[in-house]
Amino acid sequence: MNPTIELLKGHRSIRQFQNRPIQTDLFQDLIKAGQAAASSNFFQAVTIIRVTDPKKRAKLASLANNQAYVETAAEFLVFCADMNRAASCCDLHGAEANTGFTEQFIIATVDAALVAQNIVVASESAGLGICYIGALRNNPSEVSTVLDLPHDTYPVFGLCLGWPDQNPEVKPRLPIDVVLRENSYGIEEDGLDLGNYDEAVRGYYATRSSNQKSMSWSEQMSGMLSKESRPHMLDFLKTKGFLQK
Amino acid sequence: MNPTIELLKGHRSIRQFQNRPIQTDLFQDLIKAGQAAASSNFFQAVTIIRVTDPKKRAKLASLANNQAYVETAAEFLVFCADMNRAASCCDLHGAEANTGFTEQFIIATVDAALVAQNIVVASESAGLGICYIGALRNNPSEVSTVLDLPHDTYPVFGLCLGWPDQNPEVKPRLPIDVVLRENSYGIEEDGLDLGNYDEAVRGYYATRSSNQKSMSWSEQMSGMLSKESRPHMLDFLKTKGFLQK
Repeated sequence: MNPTIELLKGHRSIRQFQNRPIQTDLFQDLIKAGQAAASSNFFQAVTIIRVTDPKKRAKLASLANNQAYVETAAEFLVFCADMNRAASCCDLHGAEANTGFTEQFIIATVDAALVAQNIVVASESAGLGICYIGALRNNPSEVSTVLDLPHDTYPVFGLCLGWPDQNPEVKPRLPIDVVLRENSYGIEEDGLDLGNYDEAVRGYYATRSSNQKSMSWSEQMSGMLSKESRPHMLDFLKTKGFLQK
Repeated sequence: MNPTIELLKGHRSIRQFQNRPIQTDLFQDLIKAGQAAASSNFFQAVTIIRVTDPKKRAKLASLANNQAYVETAAEFLVFCADMNRAASCCDLHGAEANTGFTEQFIIATVDAALVAQNIVVASESAGLGICYIGALRNNPSEVSTVLDLPHDTYPVFGLCLGWPDQNPEVKPRLPIDVVLRENSYGIEEDGLDLGNYDEAVRGYYATRSSNQKSMSWSEQMSGMLSKESRPHMLDFLKTKGFLQK
């Protein structure tokens, strides 16, 4: 196993950071490594907002479920799926931008995710720690106002970057044969077979160094999926011009 | 710059592969490296279909704009955004799955993308080449039939993996200051300023080793965005249970 694969397998989110900046050269390298990701039809449909203003940091932390590390991480980036830039290219060439297709929403969302994950890998390769902040989608409209996001863009998630001040355990993943199928999806007639994964996750949660709880994976999923899931998202995205057709 | 960051910055898609398999151990390692990616609320909402059946490969290639490398790559993987597995967890615990939220569509799409990009990085670190196949979304319903995809899943994209049999140039990315903004999106009053990027892309397309053409980036975007973009996607996704609310 080579060092890069070892690095990838060792990922865990970091939520406690040293009070120490990321050097400018390294930071630029991280962003360039991100940009090098593949992009559907070469749209490069992502804009990254680097939030350095302490007031905006505090505001975003409060909008994202009061996660303190949004304020305390050396860097906080907001990844915006962005079809606005491509629409501006239509203006340059006197063409009419035909936005609003669900396909474009997928392209921009995936582009943002691929760039972000490259930045994550680059960061971890340099010894930095990261934490994705999906909770920006708790209040996407307010987040958009704070960052002056134009039409045809939306904040997909945030990303905290910094030098780790903790060393949490790696969380066990689903058995490979649950996630990887050959030639067809293949639903089991007897229902979902997770092997001993539920016990593995329960053991992880019960013994990890912080925030211990008693919970299996299927219990966690069942709890998540039997309640509403950010029910404002569809209306919000439509006001931004997405998912019209 | 460390070797991982150097690797990331050197990415280019590979569309011509040696007739040589990927060793089983390495392949398993790639998938595990993929699974180690962060996952929103730990949903792990992705299922990867490894397509080894030559008939299914041929069918998928024909559904994806006849891209030959879908057939000729050592491995072809289809990444499915998957809320079905989590819904099955509700069955296990006698809860009712509340699927169909747009938020869940985002979670599953992003999860699939993060896992895929980790697999891409792992693959390239081992000397393999990759090519994303977004064209599976040309015919997502037929793709779903070929792979027996259940409700609450959809094929986000495919991924070709194999040993490279070509050495294409790296495509120039947007200037970093176009993609990275500080504290706000900041639309320029005079319209989009791409610096000399349009010429850089035109130069790349005019001189690359294959498939040369005369095209700037803004011309390419204008052309793409002034036509319809897979207009079937919204209806397709709704039939699979996504984007209901």
